[in-house]
Amino acid sequence: MTKTVLITGSSSGIGLGMAEAFAQAGYQIMFNGLEKNGAEIAAEVGKKYGVKTHFSGANLLFPDQVVSMVAEAEKHLGTVDVLVNNAGIQYVAPIDEFPTEKWDAIIGINLSSAFHTSKAVWKGMKAKNWGRIINLTSAHALRASEFKAAYVAAKHGVTGLTKVLALEGSKLGITCNAICPGYVKTPLVEGQIKDQAKAHNISEQEVIEKVILLKQPIKDFVSVQDIGALAVFLASDAARMMTGSSIPIEGGWTAQ
Amino acid sequence: MTKTVLITGSSSGIGLGMAEAFAQAGYQIMFNGLEKNGAEIAAEVGKKYGVKTHFSGANLLFPDQVVSMVAEAEKHLGTVDVLVNNAGIQYVAPIDEFPTEKWDAIIGINLSSAFHTSKAVWKGMKAKNWGRIINLTSAHALRASEFKAAYVAAKHGVTGLTKVLALEGSKLGITCNAICPGYVKTPLVEGQIKDQAKAHNISEQEVIEKVILLKQPIKDFVSVQDIGALAVFLASDAARMMTGSSIPIEGGWTAQ
Amino acid sequence: MTKTVLITGSSSGIGLGMAEAFAQAGYQIMFNGLEKNGAEIAAEVGKKYGVKTHFSGANLLFPDQVVSMVAEAEKHLGTVDVLVNNAGIQYVAPIDEFPTEKWDAIIGINLSSAFHTSKAVWKGMKAKNWGRIINLTSAHALRASEFKAAYVAAKHGVTGLTKVLALEGSKLGITCNAICPGYVKTPLVEGQIKDQAKAHNISEQEVIEKVILLKQPIKDFVSVQDIGALAVFLASDAARMMTGSSIPIEGGWTAQ
Amino acid sequence: MTKTVLITGSSSGIGLGMAEAFAQAGYQIMFNGLEKNGAEIAAEVGKKYGVKTHFSGANLLFPDQVVSMVAEAEKHLGTVDVLVNNAGIQYVAPIDEFPTEKWDAIIGINLSSAFHTSKAVWKGMKAKNWGRIINLTSAHALRASEFKAAYVAAKHGVTGLTKVLALEGSKLGITCNAICPGYVKTPLVEGQIKDQAKAHNISEQEVIEKVILLKQPIKDFVSVQDIGALAVFLASDAARMMTGSSIPIEGGWTAQ
Repeated sequence: MTKTVLITGSSSGIGLGMAEAFAQAGYQIMFNGLEKNGAEIAAEVGKKYGVKTHFSGANLLFPDQVVSMVAEAEKHLGTVDVLVNNAGIQYVAPIDEFPTEKWDAIIGINLSSAFHTSKAVWKGMKAKNWGRIINLTSAHALRASEFKAAYVAAKHGVTGLTKVLALEGSKLGITCNAICPGYVKTPLVEGQIKDQAKAHNISEQEVIEKVILLKQPIKDFVSVQDIGALAVFLASDAARMMTGSSIPIEGGWTAQ
Repeated sequence: MTKTVLITGSSSGIGLGMAEAFAQAGYQIMFNGLEKNGAEIAAEVGKKYGVKTHFSGANLLFPDQVVSMVAEAEKHLGTVDVLVNNAGIQYVAPIDEFPTEKWDAIIGINLSSAFHTSKAVWKGMKAKNWGRIINLTSAHALRASEFKAAYVAAKHGVTGLTKVLALEGSKLGITCNAICPGYVKTPLVEGQIKDQAKAHNISEQEVIEKVILLKQPIKDFVSVQDIGALAVFLASDAARMMTGSSIPIEGGWTAQ
Repeated sequence: MTKTVLITGSSSGIGLGMAEAFAQAGYQIMFNGLEKNGAEIAAEVGKKYGVKTHFSGANLLFPDQVVSMVAEAEKHLGTVDVLVNNAGIQYVAPIDEFPTEKWDAIIGINLSSAFHTSKAVWKGMKAKNWGRIINLTSAHALRASEFKAAYVAAKHGVTGLTKVLALEGSKLGITCNAICPGYVKTPLVEGQIKDQAKAHNISEQEVIEKVILLKQPIKDFVSVQDIGALAVFLASDAARMMTGSSIPIEGGWTAQ
Repeated sequence: MTKTVLITGSSSGIGLGMAEAFAQAGYQIMFNGLEKNGAEIAAEVGKKYGVKTHFSGANLLFPDQVVSMVAEAEKHLGTVDVLVNNAGIQYVAPIDEFPTEKWDAIIGINLSSAFHTSKAVWKGMKAKNWGRIINLTSAHALRASEFKAAYVAAKHGVTGLTKVLALEGSKLGITCNAICPGYVKTPLVEGQIKDQAKAHNISEQEVIEKVILLKQPIKDFVSVQDIGALAVFLASDAARMMTGSSIPIEGGWTAQ
């Protein structure tokens, strides 16, 4: 039977990439995100891969909107078999200048929203005795960088939540794992590369290898396709005994 | 020169135990907690060990109260050399029944308050080029148990925050570490032991070894004195190169 | 172009299972093992999946035999693209009764042989700027159990070797990861279940859940197919940014 | 009652530093090492701190010499209460050029010797229901660097052995932990600094911060006194609930 995946923050970036990977593998997709044309994006992906899709603009900071989003997914797509907690934001500042409202927003979106969504889909997964929760975290869910207090704390928090859900799901046919990417080339990162190359008067390749990817032994970006393939694998039956783990896909970052 | 330690949640339990350990080692103590007689407790410890103490009833959920508490410590005791983030709460429920307000409270007290306090003391430590931040986390900052979604997520979050503060402090003479205890015998735990012994009609020793301490290879509780000694060690000059680590004191829990 | 995988200890058990998974995915297989009919086993798998295979009875304790095995693989199958270090032995005894010759044998087979084989295939992988090394370790590469001093030490050692090879390979197109299974149902384990059921006069299912799988939250065995699928995934191009990691497939064992 | 500590590789370097720390804390010391004047070194430390000492030149690669060393300690100093596995060697080369005899030597000295010594002291510790085993490993027991295949594998192996001994000792009053230092300023390192400063025509301070201590956020060396203080703490009664852990003292290396 066709399975449905709900992916938060999927109207752009990594989330959209994962949506395409799941659509290509035949899944129905419940999109979510802040893009105003989210419904169109969902429709396009659905058309391209011949699968049913739907879109919710739910704000993940509000538990009732999350509950509605899951209800909507169940109404339109029948069920939520796979939940991918992907939505995330970032802010960078030294601890003594880190704005409290930025801390609260990052903890809310990057950590607490994964609690709200997991709670909301749990009963449905339990009823079917089958479910997959995949948390898109980061190498920063395992290691730290300076000036990223909120991001690193939130992502480590999801590492912990992943383990708890794995234990609670172990008797219910539900697994929960995290994917921990290194640097992904997004439009934001591309802009940083250009700016830094100009600022330091060095080549873009040098910026990539010596600044952006300093901590990554493999001097290449992780692609959204790489992440999508891993997510689809974790959702498969072959991964039924994998649970509670945080799986790095970060070019060797955490090995050193 | 006499050093000052600010310990959150120190008017009872593990926090009070650490306060006694630091007082015995000659530190001035800034107490904090919810006990109504907090000021008396602070005064008694001060008298017993011959050190200056002060008390703040600041609610750690409110950043401005945290800022005031640090200002008060600096006014009465001259400085905050060592910060111990100890305050914490717990709630246990399956993920699909976990109340959102309990999640928010645990994330707020067990995780975000450590951000607020660390931010508040940072400038003072930076100015002296010396500081110690010690986060009292848990074996649950490294491993999970069922039904503790919020606690495990918050404690893992502090593990991440600990690493970030260590990196930012590495050039400022500030270290940050976490202490990860296993089970400590508190009045709450003592009550549970009696109740379970009665309920299952087994001896209290059996409850301790087979239920409470199931995951702990050493079948004994961690004492507040054990934790206090480790905290005092981490605050010492001998520990100047120890930073960013989560140090287990949990009877071998995380080894298996 | 057809790729070749060399799998140590592949004439039976998990190694044979991985060989079948790779053969099914179209890889040529270089078998290795102690079975006397290893050549026949290799031939059968080759016939079943329509791929070229070869067999070497090399004893992995002897570096020169390892070098010959790799040379033979290159001669008969053209190249070694993927190396799977799977061969392993076990012995269980308290530390004060653990025979030194058992320690030496386990360190030799479970740890040092992975050094010999990796060293032997490295130049070939480097020349092609492409290679995959997959170490079959264990949950015991990340956590301990009593009475398994040598096994746990050797497997943790491979965890470390995996990271080093990942770093050295990061500029050469070579990745190295480890797969960490929980309990796999082998004939040996099946015998233990029967024996313990009889000895304790309980059902086999109870032996499985309360004795054999005590530390595994998911009360089921990992299958060789599960492991094979993960190994094939790690060998794929989609996994090019995954390196240096130890990936658990152990039903949540390490989460708690 | 006066306790005795046996420290391998203690006639120079970190081992000697730990011996001084323990002697200062009142322990009797059983020295071991390759220095020809080991007996004199032992006698001098004994005289300086007013404690009994003895020396054994046992080669740790030979189990029978290890057994004799422990017997000698028991004969001259009454007992072995604390064992510190400190002896270690290093060799650096790319995997495809790494000499097999160097691999074997490093695995033998850095890993297997800790098995031999632990096995040899176990019965005595068991009989007293009290013991401490402290393994001096490295940040490389938790993370890797290029070209250190044998060292990283051996040290990770000791991390595993540490956990096993902790579990087996948990019912016997025996704890086992590892200390993981970052870079320590030894005569060898001092030579490297001078050489590299000359070779690259940069200041020695620059060599230290940008080459030697590249991976260490705190740009300072760990001192033997720092390590000694941690070892003495782990041997104390206050650390009775700390077991199975690998405790970093590496300036934040593993946090990032």
